[in-house]
Formats: sequence, C-alpha cells, structure tokens
Amino acid sequence: MLIREATAADWPAIWPFFHTIVAAGETYTYPRDLDEATGREMWLLAPPGRTVVAVDDAGTVLGTAKMNPNHMGAAAHIASASFMVDPQCAGRGVGRALGEHVLAWARAEGYRAMQFNAVVETNTRAVALWRSLGFTVMTTLPEGFHHPTKGYVGLHIMYQQF
Amino acid sequence: MLIREATAADWPAIWPFFHTIVAAGETYTYPRDLDEATGREMWLLAPPGRTVVAVDDAGTVLGTAKMNPNHMGAAAHIASASFMVDPQCAGRGVGRALGEHVLAWARAEGYRAMQFNAVVETNTRAVALWRSLGFTVMTTLPEGFHHPTKGYVGLHIMYQQF
Repeated sequence: MLIREATAADWPAIWPFFHTIVAAGETYTYPRDLDEATGREMWLLAPPGRTVVAVDDAGTVLGTAKMNPNHMGAAAHIASASFMVDPQCAGRGVGRALGEHVLAWARAEGYRAMQFNAVVETNTRAVALWRSLGFTVMTTLPEGFHHPTKGYVGLHIMYQQF
Repeated sequence: MLIREATAADWPAIWPFFHTIVAAGETYTYPRDLDEATGREMWLLAPPGRTVVAVDDAGTVLGTAKMNPNHMGAAAHIASASFMVDPQCAGRGVGRALGEHVLAWARAEGYRAMQFNAVVETNTRAVALWRSLGFTVMTTLPEGFHHPTKGYVGLHIMYQQF
C-alpha cells in the first residue's frame, strides 16, 4: 500500500465509496444527499490543507484522508483530519495507515495537536482505531448525532497532543 | 437596549471594536491581522446563519452576535454562536442580552443544543457568563490556545442541550 498526494484525477475513484459512506449517514456529519461537485470541493483541499489517497500495487484507490488546520489564529497549531476507506477494503489496515500518515504529516508541519470534532460514538471501529493511535475521547456531546437507525447518539471529540 | 438584525450598514460601527478585539488576540481564534473585508465576510452571515446587533436608545451599536449551525447533516441540530461586545460598553449586560437572544433564536429555530467550539479558558468573564446561561464546560483542550502574554492556555468546549 502506498499513500500519495491526491490529484483531481483521483476523484472519480474516490467518489463511489465516498458517496456510499456519506449517503449511509452513519458516520459523517455531511448531508446524506451531498452532490458530487460539493463533495469534491470539500474533500480535495488546497494548502495549508492536504488530501492523500491510499493505493494498492495495482494503483487502485483503497481510501483517502484530508488534513487541515482545525482552527485559525491562536489555535491554528491544532490540526484536524478526516478519513474515508472503501468499505470493500475494510480490515486491510487502510484506515490505520492513513491515520499514521496524517499524524506524521501534522508533526512534520509543526502542529502541536490533532483534534477530531465529530466522531460518532456508534462508529466503534473508528473510535478504537483512533484510541490505538493515541487519541483520547475528551468529551461526548450527548445526542449530538442523529443516526438513521439508532436515533440520537453521542458525538465524540477526540484529541491528542504531540 | 434593542437587539435587531444586523445589516451591511452596521458594519462600519462593528468593525472598530471587532478589530480591537481580534487584534488583541486574547479571546478569539481569528488571525490577529484579519483584514476588514475578510472580517465582514466572516461575521455578517447569510441564512441559515444570522447576525444581530445590540443598540442603545440612540442607535449606537454596543455589541454583535452571529449564530449558525455548528455542524452539517446529522449534527445540524447543534447551533453555534459568537459574540463581540465593544469594550467601552463592558459591564452593561450587553453580552448577556446577546447570549439570551441567540439561545432563544436557536430554540425557536428547532435546534436541540448549542456548542461553543473555542472559549479561551483565561476569558473568565465569558466562561462565567456562559455558565450562568446554562452552558457546561464539556472539556478543555490542553494548550489549545496561544495567548499573547500567558502562553499556551486551555480551550474550552462549552455545550448545552435544550
């Protein structure tokens, strides 16, 4: 698996699983009916943000991550990141590899911490993965997320300092 | 004191104290050198956001608040808000009146909660005011804010459900 900069040419490979994940509405605070052009604009970031893809030996896109400052000004030393892994590639360590990559990027760029603003508490695989990569659940906003089948569930804010 | 919708015509009255507060760099996660055009764009919101001013009997602008969804999609029922009170008008209850106004707005609009993403812990007057209006400090991001004289201080995330 290789992680490299995403380009505009990668978007057609990203959109199908990106759309599947967003339309399911279980893990992301994006509108479920997000259209492709808006999704692309939200996901493919210009500096100081950055977007990468994880690809296999054949060049197939397995997943993607975007990373960016979480705040401006006097809190701009806190980074953020978001991840999408093709559900067909689950269990192959793609999310972990992307997580390690964005943490290394943030350290190299001089960020002092990374904050995830909205991790759905029922997304237990993601929560466990981020914990294993050093993140702490700082708080859970009660009923912060309206899950399509589970109703109102908590929204974790996860954080780690470097 | 009257609280009413802000219009473009109010901006010249807002900018002087807005600029003073942002340039001081003690309470807001905005770039301290924020220019007027960018500030105006960030502050005067279009629907579903909304911006108001508090004015006295002579029509002088004492303070301002903006309010908006804090998240999208399945978390769009959480509102956010930001406040600026002219330091020359401190102690007159302007911040409290604006806080009560935005909470009433959020309830009326059907939001289920309000979340403040970045309240600087050394801004003790604001923290006490929001507590008195029903907010709880859910967590404090350690060293989340680089204060110009106090160094790295904590950044509170405050929340209240309706």
